[in-house]
Amino acid sequence: MSAPRRIGRYRERSRSERADLDAVLDAALVGTLSTVVDGQPWVVPLLYARDGDRVLLHGSTGAGALRHVSAGAPAALSVVHLDAVVVAHNTFDTSANYRSAVVYGTLEPVTDPDAKREVMTKVSDAVLPGREDEVEPMTARQLAGTAVMQLVIRDGDWLVKVRTGGPGEPDGPTDAWTGLVPIRVVAEEPVPDPRSAGLPVPASVRERVRRGGAAV
Amino acid sequence: MSAPRRIGRYRERSRSERADLDAVLDAALVGTLSTVVDGQPWVVPLLYARDGDRVLLHGSTGAGALRHVSAGAPAALSVVHLDAVVVAHNTFDTSANYRSAVVYGTLEPVTDPDAKREVMTKVSDAVLPGREDEVEPMTARQLAGTAVMQLVIRDGDWLVKVRTGGPGEPDGPTDAWTGLVPIRVVAEEPVPDPRSAGLPVPASVRERVRRGGAAV
Repeated sequence: MSAPRRIGRYRERSRSERADLDAVLDAALVGTLSTVVDGQPWVVPLLYARDGDRVLLHGSTGAGALRHVSAGAPAALSVVHLDAVVVAHNTFDTSANYRSAVVYGTLEPVTDPDAKREVMTKVSDAVLPGREDEVEPMTARQLAGTAVMQLVIRDGDWLVKVRTGGPGEPDGPTDAWTGLVPIRVVAEEPVPDPRSAGLPVPASVRERVRRGGAAV
Repeated sequence: MSAPRRIGRYRERSRSERADLDAVLDAALVGTLSTVVDGQPWVVPLLYARDGDRVLLHGSTGAGALRHVSAGAPAALSVVHLDAVVVAHNTFDTSANYRSAVVYGTLEPVTDPDAKREVMTKVSDAVLPGREDEVEPMTARQLAGTAVMQLVIRDGDWLVKVRTGGPGEPDGPTDAWTGLVPIRVVAEEPVPDPRSAGLPVPASVRERVRRGGAAV
């Protein structure tokens, strides 16, 4: 491996800058959508994209993930990145470096076909940047079969927490090894379908690999 | 890279075997706990461990993540692993291979000091296997300052979904590249605190690196 990284002083705090929220959201491909159905939590993981002040989601209108979620339902979209295991001088202080975000709001349906197409393209783009320029456009039937929702990001209705750095200072002398185990999400070499063996890997897929597990 | 992997036929389905649930839960370190507070979803990411039929959680009794969560609250613990981006012949069928689990239930407090110690050791063990044998035992004060909860796994109150394989078959002829971009969570070389530079990396940390981003 390369030279050891320097471990900074431990910091765990909420972040209040909107740019911090955008950075955490944009660095993930999958979020967890939570809502309330008959007083009980109901949860589903989903691919998503952020576009300005909107978190964009879609699913099948049939038996898909969003069928339980009605428009107007209170919702939360949460994202967490595990960046490191923090090895402290005792098990009590064992911890993790992470970046997490929760956006609270209300699910709004997107029904206009052009607006739906835009949302679906943006989610596709977060996953495979520019893929829409490499393939046939979406059909009207595909659009009609997709439920599209947005969660608007409103001031004061979101939360970001970030922990960075090493373990906290021990209370007393210790000879325990302390430090970090960095965790990273990587994208590996693309694997072609048998049908595509020998075809050049398109730009969208190469860009996905370059970005690793993150959307940006 | 090594020889390309073979892509199997596309499968996306719910799994009903309890062993499938355990495998998905045990392969993650961080889950998302969702509950309902005043009719609204409330969400927090947490380190957790599974022990038999219990999902084990803890946090500070002070300003920590669990302060909003009362005993008896309806809760859901969800976990998602993103295994690959699935590159289809159009953006509509762009998808992901994943393993997801949701456990629905009721949060129960664990208050007995010995039971709390057992839970905290199991969560520590999921993160850093065997760390408790390398460091000083937890103190009574540390135990008292920690809120410990369990979510019991009950038949019929959990959900597992797994997608594997390549993209679905195109409707018609296409010259688009299709396939997978595998995504993997890796643990990198441990980074010692300046205080620990030169000390041997302990077994718990080496085991964490070996397991990568997964708990087992």
